[in-house]
Amino acid sequence: MQFPKALALRELAEQLGLSFAGDPNHLVTGLNEIHRVVAGDMVFVDHPKYYDKALASAATTVLINKEVEVPEGKGLLISDDPFRDFNAIARYFAPNTFSPLAKSISSQVAGSAQVHDTAVIGERVVIGERSIIGAGVVLGNDVMIGDDCIIHANSVIGGDAFYYKKREDGYEKMHTCGGVEVGDRVEIGALCSIDRGVTAITRIGSGSKLDNQVHVGHDTLIGKDCLFAAQVGIAGCVQIEDSVTLWGQVGVPSDLTIGKGAVVLGQSGVTKDLEGGVTYFGSPAEEARSKYRELAMIRKLPDIIRKLG
Amino acid sequence: MQFPKALALRELAEQLGLSFAGDPNHLVTGLNEIHRVVAGDMVFVDHPKYYDKALASAATTVLINKEVEVPEGKGLLISDDPFRDFNAIARYFAPNTFSPLAKSISSQVAGSAQVHDTAVIGERVVIGERSIIGAGVVLGNDVMIGDDCIIHANSVIGGDAFYYKKREDGYEKMHTCGGVEVGDRVEIGALCSIDRGVTAITRIGSGSKLDNQVHVGHDTLIGKDCLFAAQVGIAGCVQIEDSVTLWGQVGVPSDLTIGKGAVVLGQSGVTKDLEGGVTYFGSPAEEARSKYRELAMIRKLPDIIRKLG
Amino acid sequence: MQFPKALALRELAEQLGLSFAGDPNHLVTGLNEIHRVVAGDMVFVDHPKYYDKALASAATTVLINKEVEVPEGKGLLISDDPFRDFNAIARYFAPNTFSPLAKSISSQVAGSAQVHDTAVIGERVVIGERSIIGAGVVLGNDVMIGDDCIIHANSVIGGDAFYYKKREDGYEKMHTCGGVEVGDRVEIGALCSIDRGVTAITRIGSGSKLDNQVHVGHDTLIGKDCLFAAQVGIAGCVQIEDSVTLWGQVGVPSDLTIGKGAVVLGQSGVTKDLEGGVTYFGSPAEEARSKYRELAMIRKLPDIIRKLG
Repeated sequence: MQFPKALALRELAEQLGLSFAGDPNHLVTGLNEIHRVVAGDMVFVDHPKYYDKALASAATTVLINKEVEVPEGKGLLISDDPFRDFNAIARYFAPNTFSPLAKSISSQVAGSAQVHDTAVIGERVVIGERSIIGAGVVLGNDVMIGDDCIIHANSVIGGDAFYYKKREDGYEKMHTCGGVEVGDRVEIGALCSIDRGVTAITRIGSGSKLDNQVHVGHDTLIGKDCLFAAQVGIAGCVQIEDSVTLWGQVGVPSDLTIGKGAVVLGQSGVTKDLEGGVTYFGSPAEEARSKYRELAMIRKLPDIIRKLG
Repeated sequence: MQFPKALALRELAEQLGLSFAGDPNHLVTGLNEIHRVVAGDMVFVDHPKYYDKALASAATTVLINKEVEVPEGKGLLISDDPFRDFNAIARYFAPNTFSPLAKSISSQVAGSAQVHDTAVIGERVVIGERSIIGAGVVLGNDVMIGDDCIIHANSVIGGDAFYYKKREDGYEKMHTCGGVEVGDRVEIGALCSIDRGVTAITRIGSGSKLDNQVHVGHDTLIGKDCLFAAQVGIAGCVQIEDSVTLWGQVGVPSDLTIGKGAVVLGQSGVTKDLEGGVTYFGSPAEEARSKYRELAMIRKLPDIIRKLG
Repeated sequence: MQFPKALALRELAEQLGLSFAGDPNHLVTGLNEIHRVVAGDMVFVDHPKYYDKALASAATTVLINKEVEVPEGKGLLISDDPFRDFNAIARYFAPNTFSPLAKSISSQVAGSAQVHDTAVIGERVVIGERSIIGAGVVLGNDVMIGDDCIIHANSVIGGDAFYYKKREDGYEKMHTCGGVEVGDRVEIGALCSIDRGVTAITRIGSGSKLDNQVHVGHDTLIGKDCLFAAQVGIAGCVQIEDSVTLWGQVGVPSDLTIGKGAVVLGQSGVTKDLEGGVTYFGSPAEEARSKYRELAMIRKLPDIIRKLG
């Protein structure tokens, strides 16, 4: 998320009632999460395990719960609760971004697009030329649909991220203010859910085709010409490169990368990064032929055990 | 389900054209299924395998297809088809409880709650303070939503139980007349389905968070502060204690209990009661480290088989 | 799909700008895909692997990308791109069959049926006596619902087939112009998706009951009195015979047959045709007892390996 205008580190610190370290005039131009940060962004970190990653990231401002040395050219905001303060800034700059109550006020629908009367369109939605939005579809705020797309009935695009901070007294919700970017010639089946990014975007690349009941989590980036069969579930912050095929009911947990042209067979569960150009099977998913060999071995177990007497 | 007023055993028997055993003035105050019965309730049983369980349960009246000895302080109704007669009573006292045709006549929505125009609200629905009901959400009859909840777009809460009696000529539907009780600070993702209880309630405990496309069956009781990732499927009559985490695509069949604080990793299939405080993996799900050891062993099989020559 | 009137092979060839082989007056009465063809139908084939199957099928006309010998009594259309030309004919005869934009113009709803105000009904939809169509349900074009059915909230019946031709520059969509036929006394849960056939029909047999979030692909034929628990996913062109039970989250890939009375336990993944009357478990699914023996063997592996020292 970009701020409407750049803020000096000192200004931001005052607004939040926090101390800071670094040049008071250091500029902060937006906020983002660690997977998507670029220069100008502020990122938050509240666990020692991730301090180094956050401080060394492309983010030029770090909201952190410890006084550490300021990396060169960067600024720090010191908070006893970075999650709370990150959320506070997000809510301040994007207060009305709650998708389930979406009303079409500020959207741009191409003249040649067709939107069913029962579809619900949020704010700042863009729908490209010749795209078709089916009955009962809900497009939350900040959803961009390219040209020549089809979104089938009752799908929900732009829902909130499933992202919470565990507190003593329960889970605190991360305020979602990112968006979804759907490329051109994308087809999304009935009853799919594509969550929007927390502060950045979730992307479905041009030419990709999703069958019914597919789920895609927040900030996941899907390449071009991918094919996902029904009931595939992809968590948040996943990166799927171009031309990847996932067959029915495949599951992909967060933060993983699946390389270009990989094929993952039905019901497989991915548990690590997968190289491109290879076919995988199983839960946990392994290279398919080696998995088949394993299954054949298991079938031989009774014989082995008999031999061992 | 509680009857509008208590009925004498004799009255109920006459109404159904059945014989009875026990004190004619024995009172029946409601009906319920075996997992939820309390004193005053009638339960039905039509299979010898379950006679003892029903007769010894908290239910004080048993609708049964055999003349057995009357337990002390209880009453029996003797029927050649207890399922049919149980359904008949349920339909008599709750005739209009069909959720898919829900119309908002008798519902109570808090002034501070926000309900999208396209949401459909059934009868006897209660929505608490500051709760948000998204676009296209369907709340069937007898659904209670607490305070500070969010129900995301196109979710369906309060659908009928998936519960049938197998007959010679096909499946006969159990009449659903229970409800759903959602606690406070619960978030339910897009495209989730939570079925209502057959005669009692399905409960989502306060503070629990469900991601998109989660299914919860009838009469399942979910504790506080649980976290269920996308595409989790939980059958009917399951008991999930507080602070349980189920990762994506986990499946839980009916009648099981998952203990407090258990964590079940992605795609696992639960097949038995799980103790609390432990992490599980696999289908069937086992303690995660022991499952990982198994998987490591399987990878060694080629070596073992080679050694055996 | 049947053409409005029979066409001579010569006429069809001229219309498409193609050459033909066989009797110029040979009649073509409709088109269909290979799984559903009958006499009079045209089928397309564009891969040498399937030439023999297409030429020997019940289809009496074959749209093919090679000049081959004409089977007796049949006709051939020779095209450099049979997929393109098959799609062109389908679009010509069924131009307006796009489901997501369904408007109720030409539908027949029985007087005793109940359709929720928020349901969306496509063209040429038939709804039988006493059937109930819940809130937010979308019935695409060419969907026939029998008598005494219940379709629960937000389900989508009659969506497009997930069927594409891979081209150099991405996936080309197959034009869907078939329908869905739901028998009598069928119950379909909330948030289910049943795609329509490409040119023929997808069928849910009388008396079958589907729980919530079930997916059924195009051209799949499901028998009578089947029971599918929540989140079952069935691909396209599957044949499921009568009285089959699939428990929660079972997956069935395309083109397979499951025999009468088979039971497939939760989370299983079918990978081959399954004989009827047998219980299966696992991914890949095997006869359940043999699968359980396998699992028991795996648990003994540590012992075996210890013995081998």
